[in-house]
Amino acid sequence: MMEVYWGSGSPFAWRVLLGLEIKKIPYASRLIEFSKGQHKAPEFLAINPRGKVPAIRDGDFALSESPAILAYLDRKVPEPPLFGRTPEETGRVWQAICETVGYLEPPTGKIATAIFFNRAAESADDIRAAIKPVHAELALMEKTLARSSWLVGDALSAADIVAYPLVEILLRAAGKDSAKPFDLALLPLDKTYPAIAAWRERIKALPGYERTYPPHWRDAPQAA
Amino acid sequence: MMEVYWGSGSPFAWRVLLGLEIKKIPYASRLIEFSKGQHKAPEFLAINPRGKVPAIRDGDFALSESPAILAYLDRKVPEPPLFGRTPEETGRVWQAICETVGYLEPPTGKIATAIFFNRAAESADDIRAAIKPVHAELALMEKTLARSSWLVGDALSAADIVAYPLVEILLRAAGKDSAKPFDLALLPLDKTYPAIAAWRERIKALPGYERTYPPHWRDAPQAA
Repeated sequence: MMEVYWGSGSPFAWRVLLGLEIKKIPYASRLIEFSKGQHKAPEFLAINPRGKVPAIRDGDFALSESPAILAYLDRKVPEPPLFGRTPEETGRVWQAICETVGYLEPPTGKIATAIFFNRAAESADDIRAAIKPVHAELALMEKTLARSSWLVGDALSAADIVAYPLVEILLRAAGKDSAKPFDLALLPLDKTYPAIAAWRERIKALPGYERTYPPHWRDAPQAA
Repeated sequence: MMEVYWGSGSPFAWRVLLGLEIKKIPYASRLIEFSKGQHKAPEFLAINPRGKVPAIRDGDFALSESPAILAYLDRKVPEPPLFGRTPEETGRVWQAICETVGYLEPPTGKIATAIFFNRAAESADDIRAAIKPVHAELALMEKTLARSSWLVGDALSAADIVAYPLVEILLRAAGKDSAKPFDLALLPLDKTYPAIAAWRERIKALPGYERTYPPHWRDAPQAA
């Protein structure tokens, strides 16, 4: 059975768990605990020498980087397709992924790192600089989702899977007390970005979604 | 005929030109001159609202982001395959692309921007901070290419195409006078990274390669 190495709350790992649930691929869960240094243990470095999650092991084959794992899963189990049914859809899904990774992910990472690791005060300039690009990308998503249920075409795709955990990360950061001094202007999402809010509910309603939800978020809704 | 919007010396656009030549896809060249603001002209923003090259137009269909365009070309013209012939190869090609884009591209961009735009003096700290991650990634490439002709599997793939222009950018930056105060330790490549140097020659020998070479580099080997 495929083994999946993930971390609770890692948006990158969340993508892979979502992909596996949507494809209905059975997997063995291998939770990596960063606080225990398990990502630097020799057994894990043998799977991903960079020591990052997600990573998978499928027999002798190891793979890391979340979009790459989704592409692999899609070739192994083609239905439902996560990368479109035509060359045009494939191109648009990858364009959306590249844009999410290139433009939304970096400022989201700056905000999340500062808020979750209690560095909001010393990272105040970083947070403020990140708010504008985050909203620029969310505004583009909102425009797309106002006229379509999914980010590309008329079905769920890897474009949605790659973007979704970043939205959850932003919402979780925005709800923290240490985010209060900053005008993140994300909450409540159904007021700030109603189409994204509706899309988020569609993703949360996917079969298997609950199994992908970061366990420590459920245990401690307000903790990092 | 497919129209390709590119910029001379853009490593991102170079990838698309290489992909087209390798696939032997005829295309109409549309050179965007940044110095004339053509990337912000309404006609181009209609194709890519972000105003970035590369972008393609194929009938009514427009696409941007270089890995996405390569994925589209591969679906349109499957031979030779740029994303492998098996799920495992597909996964490894995308992993290599994600790693190149995520780990090699940012520090390469810092060095290139500083050197090419004559900001080496004021960006000295940025340049110095970028040297180590660049060499970390080149060392991994060297290790792979010491035992294999190509970055993934036994054939040229999109992994090579995505990485190659970054290597050229680094070499060009290293050759500039303004790079001399920094110990970039890249030249001569056949001494610093002999396997990468041999791989580079293999890519330069590809049919059609000459048509992809940045024209202003040829006209002015030492200019930006």
